[in-house]
Amino acid sequence: MTTTSPDANGATVLRNSLLDCGIRVCFANPGTSEMHFVAALDGDERMRCVLGLQENVVTGAADGYGRMTGAPAATLLHLGPGLANGLANLHNARRARTPVVNIVGDHASSHLALDAPLTSDVEGLARPMSDFVLRITGPDDVARSTCAAVAAARRGPGIATLILPADTAWGTVSPQHRSAIPPADPRRGLADGADEASRALRQALASGRRVGLLLSGAALRGRALELAGAVSGATGARLLCESLSARIERGAGRVAVEKIPYPAAQAAACLHGIDFLLLVAATVPVAFFAYPGSSGQVLRPDTEVAVLCLPGQDAEYALDHLLGQLAATPALAPVERATFSTDHGADRPLGVTELCEIVAAGLPDDAIVCDEALTAMATLHAATVGAAPHDYLQNTGGSIGIGPPLAIGAALACPGRKVINVQADGSAMYTIQALWTQARERLNVLTIILSNRSYAILHHEMRNVGISEPGINARRMLNLDDPEIDFCQLAVGMGVEAVRVRTAREFAQAYARGLRSSLPFLIDAVL
Amino acid sequence: MTTTSPDANGATVLRNSLLDCGIRVCFANPGTSEMHFVAALDGDERMRCVLGLQENVVTGAADGYGRMTGAPAATLLHLGPGLANGLANLHNARRARTPVVNIVGDHASSHLALDAPLTSDVEGLARPMSDFVLRITGPDDVARSTCAAVAAARRGPGIATLILPADTAWGTVSPQHRSAIPPADPRRGLADGADEASRALRQALASGRRVGLLLSGAALRGRALELAGAVSGATGARLLCESLSARIERGAGRVAVEKIPYPAAQAAACLHGIDFLLLVAATVPVAFFAYPGSSGQVLRPDTEVAVLCLPGQDAEYALDHLLGQLAATPALAPVERATFSTDHGADRPLGVTELCEIVAAGLPDDAIVCDEALTAMATLHAATVGAAPHDYLQNTGGSIGIGPPLAIGAALACPGRKVINVQADGSAMYTIQALWTQARERLNVLTIILSNRSYAILHHEMRNVGISEPGINARRMLNLDDPEIDFCQLAVGMGVEAVRVRTAREFAQAYARGLRSSLPFLIDAVL
Repeated sequence: MTTTSPDANGATVLRNSLLDCGIRVCFANPGTSEMHFVAALDGDERMRCVLGLQENVVTGAADGYGRMTGAPAATLLHLGPGLANGLANLHNARRARTPVVNIVGDHASSHLALDAPLTSDVEGLARPMSDFVLRITGPDDVARSTCAAVAAARRGPGIATLILPADTAWGTVSPQHRSAIPPADPRRGLADGADEASRALRQALASGRRVGLLLSGAALRGRALELAGAVSGATGARLLCESLSARIERGAGRVAVEKIPYPAAQAAACLHGIDFLLLVAATVPVAFFAYPGSSGQVLRPDTEVAVLCLPGQDAEYALDHLLGQLAATPALAPVERATFSTDHGADRPLGVTELCEIVAAGLPDDAIVCDEALTAMATLHAATVGAAPHDYLQNTGGSIGIGPPLAIGAALACPGRKVINVQADGSAMYTIQALWTQARERLNVLTIILSNRSYAILHHEMRNVGISEPGINARRMLNLDDPEIDFCQLAVGMGVEAVRVRTAREFAQAYARGLRSSLPFLIDAVL
Repeated sequence: MTTTSPDANGATVLRNSLLDCGIRVCFANPGTSEMHFVAALDGDERMRCVLGLQENVVTGAADGYGRMTGAPAATLLHLGPGLANGLANLHNARRARTPVVNIVGDHASSHLALDAPLTSDVEGLARPMSDFVLRITGPDDVARSTCAAVAAARRGPGIATLILPADTAWGTVSPQHRSAIPPADPRRGLADGADEASRALRQALASGRRVGLLLSGAALRGRALELAGAVSGATGARLLCESLSARIERGAGRVAVEKIPYPAAQAAACLHGIDFLLLVAATVPVAFFAYPGSSGQVLRPDTEVAVLCLPGQDAEYALDHLLGQLAATPALAPVERATFSTDHGADRPLGVTELCEIVAAGLPDDAIVCDEALTAMATLHAATVGAAPHDYLQNTGGSIGIGPPLAIGAALACPGRKVINVQADGSAMYTIQALWTQARERLNVLTIILSNRSYAILHHEMRNVGISEPGINARRMLNLDDPEIDFCQLAVGMGVEAVRVRTAREFAQAYARGLRSSLPFLIDAVL
């Protein structure tokens, strides 16, 4: 293998194949072994390369981009450790069923046997957080493998990890292998069992059983969501979504969907009244965590479950099909726009409820809300039910630190829309580097840090295990108050304008200011 | 499995087993599934729990602690994603052969089958960066497994990952299984081939061939290093160490050891004159990366290689044995204390060479230098050869972001000593959260950020692949200048005092101030 004209090397064929497949954004943190690919990317400005200063910023941004466009972005990561640094947000992306083409450089094939210091088992690291893993075997394999990875990412939809050994990037590609046929959009079939599920649903309705539809994925957006509203109108079925959804279109004018609460006991109570649950691109809901003496199940054991369509199948088609078998009746009335109090004049200390109400009241049309509010999640969700129509994105995998990177990807995907990241402080610190990328790319992102100076959710869990008064070691592991983190300093240090607020009035003013700006802005809301 | 008195549950037995094995520090970032273990840790103040706000801070600190004490600290990580976040610095620790007992919580065994959102393949993630992986099978298995993990971490020395399902933590341990016998210190035998290696060395010397000893691990410290100096005195052999060492005792009064340069061509030139290389706890040196047309080897193909002892074997014993077979002659003269220029009065812009000279000149006795200076690494290393005696710790695995966490661990391990982290800016941003832990623990760490506002090492690599003028996409991926990062703001935002300097005089003053402080201090040195 020798180096060759950049026009004919694997790196250039990789870039061209990605462009041929319609990929226009590459979130990246490259290293030495990816320099030929960096050089190739440098040769075509149709690809927008976006640097993240830590790899969970890279992968979390790719998640946000994929959620909003439905199409994959590429990533570029450096060897096993670079991949490892991005795995947590790949985990979240995988749980969100986001398409991502995750490109990981590796040593040249001949170099692996030497066990140089940066050598590691890249496939082994990739597999747990990928739906598809492929190592490019040589320069002539680049175009074919790239198209296969894009196809896999779209088909899942999910995480396709493509491993790029340095020698496949710098080696010469034979003329007949310099391009491959880009994959067509996958056809999403109606689930095989949908007819049976429809029959079971009608039977359940006929026998007076209480019915729920659990919606996930594409069923929570666009025409599919409207069809679900029509099904609900025709049947009286409750419409539900999971505790944490990848993306919901909600707010005034949209179909109302009940969120299953995050705490297991509340989830069980919410679902208790359901005798028949139809899964629409969703899986059976379970508790996030197990607790002593609990089974982890939140559905009543005798609730009947049927599958209208599987995740990744065509929810719109399936719901249309189902609706056709039901008596036509008016659809569910859409959500009405709420009226919000605008009395935030008082100088009282800021509370979560008031903060969420101010956010909801001022929400611009078509905003994208990235919710990693954790203990404030339920309050934020409830407050925004009747807000202006918006997209609502959550942490689907439970690995914290998704909010700020998700906002990057959403803002890049939808340049005309305001992105509002409502963000718990402890989680923010996992990927605080994302602020720098927001500044560099001049993104229209407003970050609201909920500064309660603790891992509040874990204090709650401590009480669950019977510790009401944490001692010194528990406080050392769960409190963030010594020292307090000044998120304004962090933001300004990375080029993002920021303001710290302590009262409702200050927050309302800062929020209005953040909404007026089209550049990144951060509010450190001290609670 | 039901919950039980905390005195008899798996979590308490785990804590007690760690204490019985002599472990007194737990670097942690726990989550819900580890709450019973958090409660157990809360019950005994002999364990010092240290929170890291991102898991590479946790694992990198455990690396620093293990390097300085020779004994493992425990970590506590939350499920697969928490482990994933800490893998990059576990990779570095593994390459440093640092003992670490890496404890990873997992869902309760019964919960895994439900595939809840935070479920992942913990073993699969652990294996690539661990020398030993063990899942605790039940409460009665906790004490035995813990002792086995500690034994494995010490024996390697290396990374022993212990997976703790939540139900093994909350479940009752039978009285007869509440403790196990802590492992004895491993006996490190002389390598089987050492006699043969000694003979080969004497033969090489007798035939006038040029000999080198490549030292690693414990051979770079204490009596082993003195013995290596005696062997060099007796034989004229060159003493060498790898490009990146876990820990070297060096400076005035110590045995001089040549570092193999990091760039492959320079490494080959350094090693070209060696006809016979004796490996002392080291492996055959290779290039960090492959390049088109290069083999990755840096040793001359006809250089004879012999193994005195393997990594993890007793280097002191092996060197003592070797020395006994050689004619007694005076040992190599120790390094003399250098004299440094103290003329830093000028207001000229700060350069790397002057910065490194000022660092070396003022180095306190017994300082611990954590070097993640990257493009300034060779300059810093050269400048400190004749400085006051010190320990020198480097990034052994090439995964960047080790410096600030390493400094945490070293400072906790050696409270009376000054830790100086000379840190590249791009790498610092990977684990900038470490500053908060330094502030929280009031650690005696002085961080010097080398702010050149780029991934300078990658610009160098771009020139290697023939790109002399990076275009827009390359600049977007390799430059950190838009926006500039203000490390002072970042430090102050996390409770660390900081100052920004631009001239040699300002740096000298700031350095003196940082040395006087016993609290964390950061200098943002704009280059």
